[in-house]
Amino acid sequence: MPQLGLLHRRAWTYLLGQLLRPPSAVCIGEFHYHSQVAEAVLTSQLKPHQEKSNFIIKTPKGTRDLSPQQMVVREKILSMVVSCFKRHGAKGLDTPAFELKEVLTEKYGEDSRLIYDLKDQGGELLSLRYDLTVPFARYLAMNKVKKMKRYHVGKVWRRESPTIVQGRYREFCQCDFDIAGQFDPMIPDAECLKIMCEILSGLQLGDFVIKVSDRRILDGMFAVCGVPESKYHAVCSSIDKLDKMSWKNVRHEMVEKQGLAPEVADRIGDYVQCHGGMSLVEQMFQDPKLSQNKQALEGLGDLKLLFEYLTLFGIAEKISFDLSLARGLDYYTGVIYEAVLLQTPAPADEEPLHVGSVAAGGRYDGLVGMFDPKGHKVPCVGLSIGVERIFSIVEQRMKTSGEKIRTTETQVFVATPQKNFLQERLRLIAELWDAGIKAELLYKNNPKLLTQLQYCEDTGIPLVVIIGEQELKDGVIKLRSVASREEVAIKREHLVTEIQKRLSES
Amino acid sequence: MPQLGLLHRRAWTYLLGQLLRPPSAVCIGEFHYHSQVAEAVLTSQLKPHQEKSNFIIKTPKGTRDLSPQQMVVREKILSMVVSCFKRHGAKGLDTPAFELKEVLTEKYGEDSRLIYDLKDQGGELLSLRYDLTVPFARYLAMNKVKKMKRYHVGKVWRRESPTIVQGRYREFCQCDFDIAGQFDPMIPDAECLKIMCEILSGLQLGDFVIKVSDRRILDGMFAVCGVPESKYHAVCSSIDKLDKMSWKNVRHEMVEKQGLAPEVADRIGDYVQCHGGMSLVEQMFQDPKLSQNKQALEGLGDLKLLFEYLTLFGIAEKISFDLSLARGLDYYTGVIYEAVLLQTPAPADEEPLHVGSVAAGGRYDGLVGMFDPKGHKVPCVGLSIGVERIFSIVEQRMKTSGEKIRTTETQVFVATPQKNFLQERLRLIAELWDAGIKAELLYKNNPKLLTQLQYCEDTGIPLVVIIGEQELKDGVIKLRSVASREEVAIKREHLVTEIQKRLSES
Repeated sequence: MPQLGLLHRRAWTYLLGQLLRPPSAVCIGEFHYHSQVAEAVLTSQLKPHQEKSNFIIKTPKGTRDLSPQQMVVREKILSMVVSCFKRHGAKGLDTPAFELKEVLTEKYGEDSRLIYDLKDQGGELLSLRYDLTVPFARYLAMNKVKKMKRYHVGKVWRRESPTIVQGRYREFCQCDFDIAGQFDPMIPDAECLKIMCEILSGLQLGDFVIKVSDRRILDGMFAVCGVPESKYHAVCSSIDKLDKMSWKNVRHEMVEKQGLAPEVADRIGDYVQCHGGMSLVEQMFQDPKLSQNKQALEGLGDLKLLFEYLTLFGIAEKISFDLSLARGLDYYTGVIYEAVLLQTPAPADEEPLHVGSVAAGGRYDGLVGMFDPKGHKVPCVGLSIGVERIFSIVEQRMKTSGEKIRTTETQVFVATPQKNFLQERLRLIAELWDAGIKAELLYKNNPKLLTQLQYCEDTGIPLVVIIGEQELKDGVIKLRSVASREEVAIKREHLVTEIQKRLSES
Repeated sequence: MPQLGLLHRRAWTYLLGQLLRPPSAVCIGEFHYHSQVAEAVLTSQLKPHQEKSNFIIKTPKGTRDLSPQQMVVREKILSMVVSCFKRHGAKGLDTPAFELKEVLTEKYGEDSRLIYDLKDQGGELLSLRYDLTVPFARYLAMNKVKKMKRYHVGKVWRRESPTIVQGRYREFCQCDFDIAGQFDPMIPDAECLKIMCEILSGLQLGDFVIKVSDRRILDGMFAVCGVPESKYHAVCSSIDKLDKMSWKNVRHEMVEKQGLAPEVADRIGDYVQCHGGMSLVEQMFQDPKLSQNKQALEGLGDLKLLFEYLTLFGIAEKISFDLSLARGLDYYTGVIYEAVLLQTPAPADEEPLHVGSVAAGGRYDGLVGMFDPKGHKVPCVGLSIGVERIFSIVEQRMKTSGEKIRTTETQVFVATPQKNFLQERLRLIAELWDAGIKAELLYKNNPKLLTQLQYCEDTGIPLVVIIGEQELKDGVIKLRSVASREEVAIKREHLVTEIQKRLSES
């Protein structure tokens, strides 16, 4: 029937869809769905010996599976990040993957359009969480918690145009650390920057810099440059693009799209091209215009104190006060920061991996109050590690080095050179498992010895116990080292102890 | 305006909703949502000094946050489960939280109505995963993997009527272990049961039994009892309720709702009330009707072999062949099993916690083939641990015992008895962090010493380092044990070494 026209084919598909709908099936209601399934069935019926090419088998756009190799890398990174969070006294917390839709609205500015909503199947309207910060604020308000230092490792979802090459996905893992509570200024903020430094140094990602600014300095800068207050948001978004676009293009956007006067844009341009350390903070204090703005002065005062603490922490040289930093999220109210890798080490024959910011955060003193019925505020500051991007770098580094990753932790393999020894192997391996030893065997009645030893080589299992007729008669087991190929006979009753001794030595 | 009638109020709300819609907002399109927000605003404007009572602040129905205390318990359980999976040579795997909608359809029988769909926001139609088994099968088919032993710990979502008291949620965590591949019969199946035993024994949940049956025996039983093939599914579902309903009620459902002849129901009744060990398998082999059915004989043959292996593993007495076991999911094709706690230890003054099945699984030889364009099959067998229910039990046990749980791992607290010592404290704590020591301080410029020591008592921090003017002058630090209140002076340069020594001793 390949000569069937498109319309005919569709009609057929529809009819078949109706006919093939199983009588017991729950009505799922989507014609789109039924027609696809029917199409797959139709195709397979029409071309019985060809592939069912219409059957889609993939992960959703912008998502991926993590293979066992990738899981090993991922877990190494996560365990390093979590141990840093615990070193700083954080407690664990978990929140649901979705929230009531209204919990997420008006928190993310123009990024709100990237939120995944759940279908209205009756009951509450729900959305997948967009970050871990808003759920944390909701938790604090809901439980009337006034003070808390917590970490949270979990997936978040954003409907972004996926550019997989940059390590950006629609589903990705975030590692967050936040300090909630009313404290003396800049002490928790400084600890957040210290944590970012510890993690980025610990993961050996090469040199990095953490850009720091303050929402109040930005607002003050806009005011003294003559930006109308209604345009703060839009101008902020434009400035946020300075890491991807030149100043010339950003200026063009401000003037042409946002209708900013050219001289206003130029005044902004003078500021946003400034970056430096403590001395730039001092310089801005002397700035004839900025020093007249109350908000800017508050921000500068806090930054000065922050730099003092960062110096005591020994990390001031990693931090750059950068007036072009303008984090997009609506909820920040004070200090903001973003860590950028300075150069990704890429071998000569490969494209360098552009990963952009790998960690970011800031102060959000108003967010919890938005959830509190009486508007009670709980000041917060925190950071988020973008493990997905870090993961891309580490993965590429491992590929380049050719390092072989073991995906299992099996310590002992139970083998036999003889037929009809399954019963003995099963008895023996249960003994090892019960002693807490990580052990495997082949799920075959009569595997070949060579196959069994090859399996150990392939998967990196260091020890083999071998049982055969002679061993059974003598009450011994052969213990073989895969690396050296040495074998020794050990009394059956000493086997577990001997294995444990060998494993603790290696 | 409290005298406003319901209709007037609604009209007002709608108008306000339209007026208050911010011009920059992305259209989210749900009137329901806008009217709620407007209502909250309206209420707060009308009653400025009262609570915004319409503002909803909660987690979605059937979901919950995990507090730091709960996270500690959860992570203890998960780490125990994962270490068992690794002991049996499993690799880690991760899949996205959602799948293409069509990946999940026609896999779960009548439970399909419980799947959460995502809203159609353009692009693919997506659903939250319902279990970890179907994504695993999709992964195998997509990557043409023919053999794999993997574990997966992750959340799944089901729109069930939540009965929180039984530890049932709409979002919950599953721990899955599966063996895919063509192997000799019943060896992987026996390992799955061994793993269930190891985990349930290891978690010390009290006595348990694992019910075992086989889909083919069920089908054979239905055939010889005279159930029309079109009713297998419905009868299966009814039988599945035998753990919650009496046989009398189940029989009533079969006869009245499903139109089964009373004598057919009675024949089924004779079978489903049987349970026992290997001897029941032997007995069924002799059953004049069942022994005439090819499918049933295949199932019985496999069960016999399974019991042999379970005996070698030393767990046969934990397993009960139970003809009333009928797992609801569509994809099982062979052996099925379910672990049930025999009695939950509950103190005299508390309601016993009914948790039902805490682990289950079975063989699904056809599922991977459903995703393969050419229908190539990969036989699989696996198990899933219901950690949520186990978690409820362990949590209740801990509450009863009054055991205090530490939610942080902080080892050292940095304190001072004097004012204006923040700088010294910051310098000191950075030194500890850099040495990998878990340390905290209070985020105050001048905290009281008593407050600082009280914090250590409250949170279980074992060591305090104290720095004051005298110590600074003498080049020493005081090291205090919180438990014994003993203090010793230690040279500043030896502090880290001394702390590490103390921590390794404790």
